[in-house]
Amino acid sequence: MIWVSGWRLAASVSQAGALGLLGAGSMQPELLRAHIRKVKAATQCPFGVNLPLLYPQMQDVLDVVIEEQVPIVFSSAGSPAAVASALRDAGIIHVHVVAAVRQAEKCAALGLAAVVCEGVEAGGHNAPQGTTSLCLIPQIVDAVDLPVIAAGGIADGRAMAAALALGASAVQVGTRFAASVESSAHPAYKDAVVNAGDRDTVLALSSVTPVRLIKNAFAQRALAAEASGQSVEQLRALLGRGRGRAGIFCGDLENGEIEAGQICGLIDDLPSAESIVKNMVAGYRSARRALP
Amino acid sequence: MIWVSGWRLAASVSQAGALGLLGAGSMQPELLRAHIRKVKAATQCPFGVNLPLLYPQMQDVLDVVIEEQVPIVFSSAGSPAAVASALRDAGIIHVHVVAAVRQAEKCAALGLAAVVCEGVEAGGHNAPQGTTSLCLIPQIVDAVDLPVIAAGGIADGRAMAAALALGASAVQVGTRFAASVESSAHPAYKDAVVNAGDRDTVLALSSVTPVRLIKNAFAQRALAAEASGQSVEQLRALLGRGRGRAGIFCGDLENGEIEAGQICGLIDDLPSAESIVKNMVAGYRSARRALP
Repeated sequence: MIWVSGWRLAASVSQAGALGLLGAGSMQPELLRAHIRKVKAATQCPFGVNLPLLYPQMQDVLDVVIEEQVPIVFSSAGSPAAVASALRDAGIIHVHVVAAVRQAEKCAALGLAAVVCEGVEAGGHNAPQGTTSLCLIPQIVDAVDLPVIAAGGIADGRAMAAALALGASAVQVGTRFAASVESSAHPAYKDAVVNAGDRDTVLALSSVTPVRLIKNAFAQRALAAEASGQSVEQLRALLGRGRGRAGIFCGDLENGEIEAGQICGLIDDLPSAESIVKNMVAGYRSARRALP
Repeated sequence: MIWVSGWRLAASVSQAGALGLLGAGSMQPELLRAHIRKVKAATQCPFGVNLPLLYPQMQDVLDVVIEEQVPIVFSSAGSPAAVASALRDAGIIHVHVVAAVRQAEKCAALGLAAVVCEGVEAGGHNAPQGTTSLCLIPQIVDAVDLPVIAAGGIADGRAMAAALALGASAVQVGTRFAASVESSAHPAYKDAVVNAGDRDTVLALSSVTPVRLIKNAFAQRALAAEASGQSVEQLRALLGRGRGRAGIFCGDLENGEIEAGQICGLIDDLPSAESIVKNMVAGYRSARRALP
């Protein structure tokens, strides 16, 4: 949720009764501090920070999160062991994002509070294993005695019911909130999500850093480079720097990375975060009632 | 379900109250006729035949299906228009396997009875789009006014509840029956399915004929050839002929294709088809009851 989830979106989601997350991966440490303070000013409800562990200024970001007494941290994209003891000592609830059974077992051994189980349909940074939510959720539920939060492919109440039927305790929702009123993404990015169909994303750059993108000109170039057998160094050079910012925050639909989940095909409007949460709960109830 | 679903498995599944399918893709026309007659002798219950439309002897197989008055045909791997009128004229219920919204819309326009919505987690022959069951099912449910049968990633009652929560009317189950007592697969193949973990399948040969396989020596060779940018002709030569038969029916775990769905990580026993059906229904009921 980098470039998407600043204080406005996080506070609105929490205020609506869900758990809003700030996306720290696109913020300098002092900017994150400012966003944390704005969330606290905007809502009394709990909120969290997503901490991508490959972030270069990770230690500084961790210091900010602890100093500002953020109640909940979702770490991702790295080993949770790197931050588990610091978070525990600070009394912060620690959840980690996993894409395989073995990673979930490591989180359980570390004493984390929960795991996010992320399927390959998720947008943005992704795992190389390619396991889908439908296959991954029940295997992680069976493997660990922790609450499992399902992520990847969930944009409405039907998918929430599906995830809970598979044994998840909760769902994490990305792309649906990226295309909301309060999302800090560029309007052109939001329109790209709304306009995408069922076949319009692709998992690209698997040998460098797997990322799910809407198939724009950049994604097509990346796919062609991969199909022609280019080396990891060549693919890194093609990727360059700042493409996520260009696509998501600046709306460069040609050369930016338009990070989005596969479920973008189901998304065709730009509601408020509050109405997304309400509709999802109502949709969950009617999906549950409709089960034979 | 080629090399897996002969008359024993199809009849047992139908006898257990589900709909057994004969996999015609691995049978010469007269062998298929013999299997159809054996199913009819073994059960009074309805059954079907799966007809992969890329099969070289398709017209002969179609003739057999019509002559033998098979009640239901599931076509796949091609355009259903090729067989729709012949099946309709013969009074045979026609269902087609799709992996995209547009394909489902074409089936609706052709007047088919239902569509099977197959996600990328499915074993064996697969679609190049890569859309997962969780993302595809609700989009197809929303797009067409036909019963949707969910396939891909479904091996227990929890997944059946998930698929139905997404709006599917039924589920189609492959790999779970491939690893059953009555499956005609080789014992070594069945053991490979039972032993596989959550990360042990891969979608290979996407530029030639996308197929989901357990990652054995052949699959690794195919992946390496793809990553090095080999041409479609080179990949075709690497694939050669008869690898599905070698892996599934003859149990060549090194050089055969071990076709299996991603959900094989959840499968750890070899029950009878009847017990699979019973457990799935019981699991569905308890998953539904457990929903908050």
